[in-house]
Amino acid sequence: MCEANAYLVGKEGNTLVMEAVDSVEPEGDGVKLISIFGEQKFVKGSIYSLALVDHNIFLKPKE
Amino acid sequence: MCEANAYLVGKEGNTLVMEAVDSVEPEGDGVKLISIFGEQKFVKGSIYSLALVDHNIFLKPKE
Repeated sequence: MCEANAYLVGKEGNTLVMEAVDSVEPEGDGVKLISIFGEQKFVKGSIYSLALVDHNIFLKPKE
Repeated sequence: MCEANAYLVGKEGNTLVMEAVDSVEPEGDGVKLISIFGEQKFVKGSIYSLALVDHNIFLKPKE
């Protein structure tokens, strides 16, 4: 499987938002994360960067 | 491995930009793609959505 962990990038470090993320889709002023288990979460922000071999997705909060 | 294929989303369909992408990082007014082979490519745009189980990254061109 090729899922990844999604982190919210912050000034004081990164916060894990969701594990085993399959898809990230734009929705309104943010993104909707969907895990491989079907769990959904909305984050007010956008995709900042990816490091897929390390299974990491970094999200930037909307200012 | 958990690499993915990066596509540029267009009105007339999606164009494959790079295969086996490991990382995507913001750079200037676009993103820098780096493949698992170390190949680099700059795309003037941003990350639009992800479908990691299907190994897909979708990039939106900057308007």
